[in-house]
Amino acid sequence: MADKKMVEAITSMDEDFAQWYTDVVRKAELIDYTSVKGCMVIKPAGYAIWELIQSQLDSRFKETGVQNVYLPMFIPESLLQKEKDHVEGFAPEVAWVTHGGLNPLTERLCVRPTSETLFCDFYKNDVHSYRDLPKVYNQWCSVVRWEKETRPFLRSREFLWQEGHTAHATAEEAQERTIQMLNLYAEFCENVLAIPVIKGQKTDKEKFAGAVATYTIEALMHDGKALQSGTSHNFGDGFAQAFEIQFTDKDNKLKHVHQTSWGMTTRLIGAIIMVHGDNEGLVLPPKVAPVQVNIIPIMQKKEGVLDKAYELRDRLSNFRVKVDDSDKSPGWKFAEAEMRGHCIRVEIGPKDIEANKCVICRRDTREKIEVSLDELESKVAEILDTMQTEMLERARAHREDHTYVAKNMEEFEKLFTEKSGFVKAMWCGDQACEDTIKEKLSVTSRCMPFEQEQIADTCVCCGKPAKKMVYWGRAY
Amino acid sequence: MADKKMVEAITSMDEDFAQWYTDVVRKAELIDYTSVKGCMVIKPAGYAIWELIQSQLDSRFKETGVQNVYLPMFIPESLLQKEKDHVEGFAPEVAWVTHGGLNPLTERLCVRPTSETLFCDFYKNDVHSYRDLPKVYNQWCSVVRWEKETRPFLRSREFLWQEGHTAHATAEEAQERTIQMLNLYAEFCENVLAIPVIKGQKTDKEKFAGAVATYTIEALMHDGKALQSGTSHNFGDGFAQAFEIQFTDKDNKLKHVHQTSWGMTTRLIGAIIMVHGDNEGLVLPPKVAPVQVNIIPIMQKKEGVLDKAYELRDRLSNFRVKVDDSDKSPGWKFAEAEMRGHCIRVEIGPKDIEANKCVICRRDTREKIEVSLDELESKVAEILDTMQTEMLERARAHREDHTYVAKNMEEFEKLFTEKSGFVKAMWCGDQACEDTIKEKLSVTSRCMPFEQEQIADTCVCCGKPAKKMVYWGRAY
Repeated sequence: MADKKMVEAITSMDEDFAQWYTDVVRKAELIDYTSVKGCMVIKPAGYAIWELIQSQLDSRFKETGVQNVYLPMFIPESLLQKEKDHVEGFAPEVAWVTHGGLNPLTERLCVRPTSETLFCDFYKNDVHSYRDLPKVYNQWCSVVRWEKETRPFLRSREFLWQEGHTAHATAEEAQERTIQMLNLYAEFCENVLAIPVIKGQKTDKEKFAGAVATYTIEALMHDGKALQSGTSHNFGDGFAQAFEIQFTDKDNKLKHVHQTSWGMTTRLIGAIIMVHGDNEGLVLPPKVAPVQVNIIPIMQKKEGVLDKAYELRDRLSNFRVKVDDSDKSPGWKFAEAEMRGHCIRVEIGPKDIEANKCVICRRDTREKIEVSLDELESKVAEILDTMQTEMLERARAHREDHTYVAKNMEEFEKLFTEKSGFVKAMWCGDQACEDTIKEKLSVTSRCMPFEQEQIADTCVCCGKPAKKMVYWGRAY
Repeated sequence: MADKKMVEAITSMDEDFAQWYTDVVRKAELIDYTSVKGCMVIKPAGYAIWELIQSQLDSRFKETGVQNVYLPMFIPESLLQKEKDHVEGFAPEVAWVTHGGLNPLTERLCVRPTSETLFCDFYKNDVHSYRDLPKVYNQWCSVVRWEKETRPFLRSREFLWQEGHTAHATAEEAQERTIQMLNLYAEFCENVLAIPVIKGQKTDKEKFAGAVATYTIEALMHDGKALQSGTSHNFGDGFAQAFEIQFTDKDNKLKHVHQTSWGMTTRLIGAIIMVHGDNEGLVLPPKVAPVQVNIIPIMQKKEGVLDKAYELRDRLSNFRVKVDDSDKSPGWKFAEAEMRGHCIRVEIGPKDIEANKCVICRRDTREKIEVSLDELESKVAEILDTMQTEMLERARAHREDHTYVAKNMEEFEKLFTEKSGFVKAMWCGDQACEDTIKEKLSVTSRCMPFEQEQIADTCVCCGKPAKKMVYWGRAY
């Protein structure tokens, strides 16, 4: 039974989903806690996922003309205060630097919770003419928000992200970029993370501090809770007015720029875990799996077995491949590979070698496939492709199974009492109804989806004429 | 004359090297100043160099088994204080966070100036057995040191770097890793940045706070000043003792780990500028040049010219290539390309097209080469290779021309009065002599090189028996 030790230590997800999540992030060695409350260490297995997310997201950014930059991590208090809504949204949750070396600072600096104000201060000096536009900049960095309750990847006092900040000559162009990045995020989530998302707009209550409009992609976790997975904001010229970012346009008139910002964070790793994971541990989509192929020799002390394993590894060098040649038992290695989310394991022993074959086991379905060694490379590629596709399909089916419709408050309450998932329901547009629903059921409006349906004519809460269909849910 | 505007704004490097440097970093649009004193914006042209440094350094790291991680940016004051020498070295120059949100913290947190203490705190919990060793971790992040005098890239309050932190079972293995990383840094500087370096050990006076031994690579800038370009530290088990990082060894005994750390920073970009730049602006080694080929159409309004330029760009897609199709004059474009350090420019006009050729101009030598369009790809590759090699050779020749030998204090003083560069001279090993030399001449010991020479038998300062040959210099 020692073989199963790693696995048995995991709580079942049906028993206690929160504990299952914590077990997985620890046992798969994605993170560790630290002496700094609310901050975590991202360990190699976790950081490698982030690197794969970064490289694939960054190359998509660059294809759309994004340029990377780096701005300071500190924001002078006076700068943070320039845009009224923005400071109200963020000031209560920032960390303040008050001393540099042995001396008190003349002005406090906050550690950036987000960098709109710094980008504005920069663009103010960098943009003069329509020839300087658009600015389509992004930075990869860490930000700090002094959260009270924290959870690995999902909510921590410091987290890693990218933040894009753009400036445009016209409102139309800013709106176009806002939607372009939202679409890019959605495509990335579906095709790389195998996570289907709902695209839509946030209500005023839920939008970003300082934005005219916030767009979001919302994903559904295995436990039926929603996770905001990426946001894209259109600021109009509000920040430009506050920071006096002006340019001379082609018509020789002085105008304010229009701005956007958009971000994705390490919480995506939390989404991957909660969408795809199972009771054996982590399940990773091949495109972001640090180990796609784990070759596990059977009876590895027999002559030729390890050599064969290394030979297969070399043949599979187009994949992220490892050989587990440790002195643990095969059973232990299988369990460990499952816990860590290695996409496929290749079992190779003396009998396989004799028969010129190996056994491939898929992590997601645990299906075992006998493969002739002659067609190893093509079969591995095929299996990984299939796995990537089917993981998305399963996640989509799960979301569809857990998306409900409510026409009135009775149905709405019943659904959120008995089920967990998204509920589609009509809304009058009044924030009071959102407040009521949140207070009563701890449910928030996730988004007003681009794909609207006329479920009913009246608001699910107050019964007045409805304006929008909204996805509602309990969220991380 | 408008064509030359960008260039004329640069101060000549012979007239005022410091001003030339500042002009280049601004005019080549590498950085911008910010409202945060001592912190800078790294603009797209600067950050793209950093990305090329990162990717090539990171792949070298990974080949030696390095794994990337991410640790918090905050260090609790009590943690920073655990290793006595370390806290004395860093406490006077850190930024302190005292408030989280609206509340004062119970314990101050410093923004990491370096992360030895955090890694120790992490390893303490993560290392139990010899099976857990070695740990060879690295992180890419920003750090903060509250410097009084700052200069772009060379010394700023926040800068980007990588910091490797390793833990080993034996002293020998730690020493091996320390030297391995120093060698990797040296190879990287020479083969990627085209900057030759002197490898050696720091004196006790100059070593890292808390290290048993600090090794360094020292480069010589164009003005004859030295720049410490990378360091690798062996900590012995000092930190492990202070933090109680112990493991059970194969012999079943409890032992302390042996540790190393090593880092390189964005100051490398400053080194590239000061080693290779000239009075026309930036000169970048091809391996870290964001634009290797700039295709400049001549008489671009003539039919077919722009199309040809785009065709050449597509053919050169293995390189980092752009077409300057802006409506500026060719002369202006040439000057701008030189300022920004584009490695080669390809001039293509109606006459060239007719003759099936183009003119290639190398940025470093300004040599013009006529190339048949039939062999464009191979010629471009060849020219870039040659440029990379010759840039290193020129930098090495410059360093050799500016490396002097002093046998006694008279020669030593004369050299540092009349010349600028490295001076090789003997040293008794006594810190008092370093202090005297620093006070008198603002000269510091750069390193005790691995390649020792017996220049004299006595210390250049006090005349007592010499122990080591030292490279001395004025440093950034």
